[in-house]
Amino acid sequence: MMRGRVAYAGAIHEASPDPNGVRLADGRVRREDEVVWLAPIEVGTIFALGLNYAEHAKELQFTRQEEPLVFLKGPGTVIGHRGVTRRPADVSFMHYECELAVVIGQTARNVKHENAMQHVAGYMIANDYAIRDYLENYYRPNLRVKNRDGGTVLGPWFVDADDIEDVTQLELRTYVNGTRQQHGNTRDLVTDIPALIEYLSGFMTLAPGDVILTGTPEGIVNVNAGDEVVCEIDGLGRLVNTIASDADFGRA
Amino acid sequence: MMRGRVAYAGAIHEASPDPNGVRLADGRVRREDEVVWLAPIEVGTIFALGLNYAEHAKELQFTRQEEPLVFLKGPGTVIGHRGVTRRPADVSFMHYECELAVVIGQTARNVKHENAMQHVAGYMIANDYAIRDYLENYYRPNLRVKNRDGGTVLGPWFVDADDIEDVTQLELRTYVNGTRQQHGNTRDLVTDIPALIEYLSGFMTLAPGDVILTGTPEGIVNVNAGDEVVCEIDGLGRLVNTIASDADFGRA
Repeated sequence: MMRGRVAYAGAIHEASPDPNGVRLADGRVRREDEVVWLAPIEVGTIFALGLNYAEHAKELQFTRQEEPLVFLKGPGTVIGHRGVTRRPADVSFMHYECELAVVIGQTARNVKHENAMQHVAGYMIANDYAIRDYLENYYRPNLRVKNRDGGTVLGPWFVDADDIEDVTQLELRTYVNGTRQQHGNTRDLVTDIPALIEYLSGFMTLAPGDVILTGTPEGIVNVNAGDEVVCEIDGLGRLVNTIASDADFGRA
Repeated sequence: MMRGRVAYAGAIHEASPDPNGVRLADGRVRREDEVVWLAPIEVGTIFALGLNYAEHAKELQFTRQEEPLVFLKGPGTVIGHRGVTRRPADVSFMHYECELAVVIGQTARNVKHENAMQHVAGYMIANDYAIRDYLENYYRPNLRVKNRDGGTVLGPWFVDADDIEDVTQLELRTYVNGTRQQHGNTRDLVTDIPALIEYLSGFMTLAPGDVILTGTPEGIVNVNAGDEVVCEIDGLGRLVNTIASDADFGRA
């Protein structure tokens, strides 16, 4: 099942896809642009992977790490589908990162690779923005690179794990103003999903609602104010958002 | 006002200090050990400072940074007063870090130094444990150093900002099994509280409930299973917790 969360007419509603837009749990159908899309779930801890596609690591001129390079993102960075992400005036390189987001469904502690997928509830699309200006080195996904308002776009849907036939063969694509800029496949993950769960749960209890952003493939270009960025992943839908300048953000 | 949150007899209660232990909001007074202490507030984003006392930076053989070194801690690391923190069997150096925790009370974005303190709701004691084995370098408070179960101990009390006469002159002390090991004063913060709020709110909206762990002074020793660690800060109380081995954790 695909489900989203939208705000409409004074309340927050569970929502599902409809040929004419979006269907609220109470039966109302509205156009996509008539509702405010929130992240599909209330997130817990957000873990994010750096350099988890070899070609992308090459693109950033980093060599592949020996263990997963994981950092945290704060809950305050999260926005939903059709949200606006702000581009600071004083930076020269801001980029999107289309990523498969894995949502934990069952508490995981010291879970082995072969059992790890039982702890996955489902998936979302994530766009994990970065301000590359502040990316000092391999070790430092500096807070200013990754922890900004609107820097974690999630949605439109949460999709149950059972509805994804083979999560190791999903195409990821990012379009900027209609031009495809990023293209990858989850088969190229350096550390795969069960290995990530094994790694993280080896030192930390993972709780339902925790999210793992599994990293992004190559194909990074700078985005500017006014750009529309669309991230697509097979079976998960299309996550749209736009970039506003600092100056225009007040009107966005 | 000092207030805590405790679980007792089937519910979670707001609590306050009492000469005979702890007073629940419903008037019942219980001994400290008759209740389960939770973190005094529901935390939002947890920001933590590395190397924010010059003498501690020296102790770790790092040179002082030019901008604040901030990283995030996940909400899953939080436990309250009298909680148990687990010491992994395969590490050689685990240490406590007594820190002043600043709790944001009003949304802050692009706040200037001179107005920053208006956004502070109050303070707590934090014990921000670290597994130094994984501390690779200046840049990398690796997730395995800081993001572990029970690695962020908060409490026992949240204290209103107005009740602290001068937050720039608070003594911090840590005792391990009764012996004072750590001793510092918030006057020695490299980046002070208003400067931290100015810095963070310059690229990120800070929300009520967000917490800034302001860093720890020098005086770090290894702690072992069975140790009792007490962090004290003037006006905020005494935060007690114990260390359990992996093997004993099942019984702790």
